[in-house]
Amino acid sequence: MSASGFASLPKPPYYAVIFSSLRNDRDDAGYGAMADRMVELAAQQPGFLGVESTRGADGFGITVAYWDSEDAIRAWRQHAEHTAAREQGRRDWYDHFELRVAKVERAYGWNRSPE
Amino acid sequence: MSASGFASLPKPPYYAVIFSSLRNDRDDAGYGAMADRMVELAAQQPGFLGVESTRGADGFGITVAYWDSEDAIRAWRQHAEHTAAREQGRRDWYDHFELRVAKVERAYGWNRSPE
Repeated sequence: MSASGFASLPKPPYYAVIFSSLRNDRDDAGYGAMADRMVELAAQQPGFLGVESTRGADGFGITVAYWDSEDAIRAWRQHAEHTAAREQGRRDWYDHFELRVAKVERAYGWNRSPE
Repeated sequence: MSASGFASLPKPPYYAVIFSSLRNDRDDAGYGAMADRMVELAAQQPGFLGVESTRGADGFGITVAYWDSEDAIRAWRQHAEHTAAREQGRRDWYDHFELRVAKVERAYGWNRSPE
């Protein structure tokens, strides 16, 4: 994840894992540390392309992780430390989440020109 | 968009338009009114399935709109009021955005059981 929040991605096709979640109001420090660790760990996995993530003050957040293949998504899902983090998420941090796996077919970006 | 922030979607396959954006710090009222209007208008279009959206205090936001077909996405893109809103977005509200169109192939959700 770049400082700006945007992932730098190759040209499509590639895969997106869209994770929408509602945090409860407990254990912000523990959750934040784990979220940072999962980004750090995901970025070390084969096939990881990038991640974008944000959460509003109401606790609703969206994280989109980008991968080069379904195999890479499957391997990350089976990673032991990630599996443990997901279990802790259900136990301690989330009230609701939805996960969607999608194949990105086209992409377009725009940046403001320097004034 | 439900009160909780989550979209209620049918079983895949369907399409996702993932819109990541960085707001500048100007015209929050005008931007907010237009964002609300675009959600209201999108929800009236054929093929619209739902939308999820959030933005952090740093101005980085992610909106994912779900549609039943590429044709529905194309028609929404060509809607005159939406086209005008996009032009205003580039002129007044955004410093950077990235848009990715993806086909959702599978989905999974989890809700905390009442305690």
